This record gives sequence, C-alpha cells and structure tokens, in this order.
Amino acid sequence: MEQVCVGVDIGGTSVKLGIFTLNGDLLKKWEIPTEPKNDTKALIEKIGKSIKETLKEARLTLTDCVGVGMGVPGPVMPNGFIEIVVNIGWREVFPARILSDLLAGMPVALGNDANVAALGEAWMGGAKHQQDSVMVTLGTGVGGGIIIDGKIVPGKHGLGGEIGHMHVRESETEKCNCGGKGCLEQISSATGIVREAKRLLATKKVASRLALLEDITAKDVLDAAKAGDEIALEVVDTVSKYLGIALSHLAMTVDPEVFVIGGGVSKAGDFLIDKIREKFEYYTPITKNKADIVLAKLGNDAGIYGAAKLVLG
Amino acid sequence: MEQVCVGVDIGGTSVKLGIFTLNGDLLKKWEIPTEPKNDTKALIEKIGKSIKETLKEARLTLTDCVGVGMGVPGPVMPNGFIEIVVNIGWREVFPARILSDLLAGMPVALGNDANVAALGEAWMGGAKHQQDSVMVTLGTGVGGGIIIDGKIVPGKHGLGGEIGHMHVRESETEKCNCGGKGCLEQISSATGIVREAKRLLATKKVASRLALLEDITAKDVLDAAKAGDEIALEVVDTVSKYLGIALSHLAMTVDPEVFVIGGGVSKAGDFLIDKIREKFEYYTPITKNKADIVLAKLGNDAGIYGAAKLVLG
Repeated sequence: MEQVCVGVDIGGTSVKLGIFTLNGDLLKKWEIPTEPKNDTKALIEKIGKSIKETLKEARLTLTDCVGVGMGVPGPVMPNGFIEIVVNIGWREVFPARILSDLLAGMPVALGNDANVAALGEAWMGGAKHQQDSVMVTLGTGVGGGIIIDGKIVPGKHGLGGEIGHMHVRESETEKCNCGGKGCLEQISSATGIVREAKRLLATKKVASRLALLEDITAKDVLDAAKAGDEIALEVVDTVSKYLGIALSHLAMTVDPEVFVIGGGVSKAGDFLIDKIREKFEYYTPITKNKADIVLAKLGNDAGIYGAAKLVLG
Repeated sequence: MEQVCVGVDIGGTSVKLGIFTLNGDLLKKWEIPTEPKNDTKALIEKIGKSIKETLKEARLTLTDCVGVGMGVPGPVMPNGFIEIVVNIGWREVFPARILSDLLAGMPVALGNDANVAALGEAWMGGAKHQQDSVMVTLGTGVGGGIIIDGKIVPGKHGLGGEIGHMHVRESETEKCNCGGKGCLEQISSATGIVREAKRLLATKKVASRLALLEDITAKDVLDAAKAGDEIALEVVDTVSKYLGIALSHLAMTVDPEVFVIGGGVSKAGDFLIDKIREKFEYYTPITKNKADIVLAKLGNDAGIYGAAKLVLG
C-alpha cells in the first residue's frame, strides 16, 4: 500500500482532517467539532481516535502513515510549546507529544495555522513549484506565513508571518487588538474594510450604494467598488495601498518569488489582486524584476494540506 | 596542517581579504586596492593571485584551503549572476566562476556585501550562537542582512535584507536614491541623520550647538544628543522611531532571536541602542517576549568573516 500522511487543521469551531499521499493528493477529508474546549488532552484524544478510525476505514494501518501535522490558531514556540491558544482554551501544552503518544510514537509536527496554510499553498496551491513564497490571509483578521526554501519561517518568539500586525499606518488613532495602532489588520481585514467604509461614509458626503445598506460587509464594499461606487473604490484603494506597503516590506526583506493572497476577502479575485499589484509596484521602485502576486488556490483546505506537508519536512 | 578558508570583501576603494580557520579564527588579514575597475576578470585575477601568494607565505597549499567566499557591493542573483555593480563597474558577470577557475576549481561562494556582513556577525560577532538574526548596517546608506537557520536569506530578486528601502515614513516628500519616498535609509543613515538635523534647524527656532557648526556630521548630531541638545535629541528620536518600526516589521515577519546594529552610526553605542529598543518595544505590543538588540562586534571585518563563512555553508 502507498504511504500516506495526515493533516489536521484545528479551528475555533471545527477540526478539519485530511489523508494525503506523499505527493500531495488528497485522498479523504472530514471534520469533527472542536469539542471539548479548554481540555487539550480530551480534544487530542478525539483527534487521535478519529484518525485511527478513518485510516482503518481506508484499510490503512498506522505503519502506512508516515506522520501527522497539526495547525493550531495561535503562536507555537520552536520546541512545540504552546503558551496559550485563546479561542480553544489551550494553555501551556505540548500537543504534538500527546498525539504522538496516542499514535504509537508516530511523528507529529505542529505549527501555527496561518503558517501552515502558507505551507499548504506553497506545496500544492498558488505557490506550487516555488521555494520562497509569502501568503497573506485576508479574513476576519490578517494572517500570514513565510516560506523560505520550502520551509515555514516560524520565528523565535512564535511571531513568524504575523503580517497583520505590521505597523503600516502612522496616522491611525484607534487601537488594534494587539495593543498597537496602525496595524495592517486594522485596514485590510474584512473587519478593517467595513470600518474604513463606515469612516468614509461618515465623513464624505457623496452618494454611495453602501449608505443604503443596513449592515455593511466586506463583500458589499468590494462588490460596490467593482460597480464603480466612489466611496467603495476609495476604501479598496486604501486597503490595497497598505497591503502594497506590507508586501513591499516583505520584498525588501525576505524577497520571495511570489505572494499568495487568500482568505475570504480574496474572493474579490483579480479585481483586488490588480489593485494590490499596482500599489506594490509603486512602493518597490528599486527594481523592475518583482515578485508575482497570485490568488490562493486551496481555499479552506490550505490548512490540512500544509499540516500534512509539515510532517513531511 | 589545519584547513583554512578565505573571505574576500570587495569594496569601492579596497578589497579586504582574510584567512580563517574553519572555526572562525582570523589567521591573517590584508587589503589590496579595488583596481582596475570596470574589468571583472582583471580584478578577480589580482584577487586570485593575492590569495595564492598569501597562502604560500603562510606555507599553505591550495588543498589546505576548503574554499573562498566573496562579498560584492550589489545584488547577487540566486545562481551567482551579477547584473550590475555600479561602483566597481561590473556588468553581467559570474565572478565566482572566474575565481574558481583561477584556483584549480576550488569552491567559491558569492553574496551581497551587506548580507555577507550579517553572516559574519552571526558567525563570530554580535549574533554568535544564534541561528536567526537580522543585521542592520547604519552607514552612508542603510543596509541589512537576514540570517535564518544560520544561512543568508538572499532573496529571489537579489533584494534579501534591503532593509534601507523599506517604506516607513508616509509623510516624506523628498525622493530616495531608489526612486521611492519615505525609505528608512532617508532617515536613519548617516546622510539621513544630517538631513533630519538640517531640516529641524531650519524650522525650529531653539538654541542648538549644531547651529554653530559649519558642516554637520552624523557624529556631531549623536554627540550633541548625548549632551542633551534639544534639536539633536529630536533627530535621534525620529531616527530611532523609524528604525524601531523597521525592526518591528522584521519581528512580525521573520521574528529573529536578535537584531545586530552595525555601521558607522552604531559607534554611538548603547545610547543609540537604548533609544532603538524603546521604540521597538513600543511598536511590538503583541508580546513581551522580544528579540534582543545588540551592537555589532566585528566592525569592518564583518565582511571577510561572513565571506569566509559563506563558502563553509
């Protein structure tokens, strides 16, 4: 039987799992609820049991599986230690060790979920065939992951790829969740896009279809921008500007081959990518030979792909 | 006989060379002028001849030497190709191949000088014993180098560690050499420090010892700041602020263990480091567990150390 590996993506509501060939073909994927919370051992036991059962259903044994990778929604220290993961209530644990013990000592790798998603896109998604890439995930927040020589740059304090908390806007007055002011996440996340739109609607007295909506979503803003709405276009301009600045910082430091843009906001597609590229070019006049900017390809599966790749090294 | 390696640091005026043990002990260092320019082959031949002669003087043979590393003042592509190095007049060459041919096929490695200096500091200087570090060189310009897992991150377009051209100041109106506006180099280089001081002297009507000088240098500004001069202190505050922002970007992306500050401006010592650290802490509220900031230790020898290490891999 062909050898396989397993990717586990632990989110706040559900745990996604996938069985992969070592070449990156997804053989099976499934989900279980993230329950119980606040009890690492109990959740890891459920994950271990689910993996064993599903391997068995696929007529695979533990020895057919070369290892399991896990992505978690919080910072992971270089030794695999997790100090705290707020939204699943984990505190001071070594989750990979627990799972490995339950799976007969099988290798288990652990990474931050945004970094792991970046690795997934680098393995089988938007940055496939590239050794150096940076993924930026535009969701409720802004996450990211840096891949150099095919490997995650996890950082020495668990901050590797925390692109959303780059301080890019000097004039910002409101505080970000991190305690800072002017973070990329405050502008270019779904939440940030809505906030920018509300700010502009309050200050600019021009007609906008957004003014007619009871509650504005990031999708509303992007759709309105595509339709030529002035306020929405200004929001997208600001969002793209600060993304362009953040990407230019990354180009002037790790200088990847390609940037991969993912997350819910990226569903705006090439319209958004073109705007980001325009700003990125403006902020990188130093060279004409620039990194490419592409859309992510794996959607919500990036995490399980990357987790599986993580254990393959 | 113990095995050795050679480091070559090619500058605009002189070529520095050093013979090292594989453990990083500098056995001998010397210099030759960077002549002729605009002729890669002729200069490399002089370097090769000088290496052979000096090895011979030290009673070493070519087989005692495991390889030569070279740092050059310009971008180096991943395959060792140099498109252009302006201040020595090199164009479209593979310099490592030329030197290797002259040294009986000996391994020759090539890197950008700022990256190579960062590697030197990581090997035997301020970041010794750290696997992940970032060096920032505050000289006439601002250069840098990123070391992850003990290796340079050279970048896919030769821009790895081009920290000086991070766009950090939104309000800047003057153009940088790179064609952009608001680059770190415009503020925190020796040139930038003088410019900031002149700007403030022109706009702020407070007494300053700097107003008495015919020509201001960066050292004058830093000395005046140490002595409590109001204008000079404001300059150092601005210089440190944008350095702190740049370091915070690096902390939120590659998250090194330590930042190493070098170059002529860093001779201001702990006074400057403390100011930078204060700003860095302000811009990284996300965690208390932060990268250290230290002074470079190798001075002008960082380049030959790093070049030697480059060929050791």
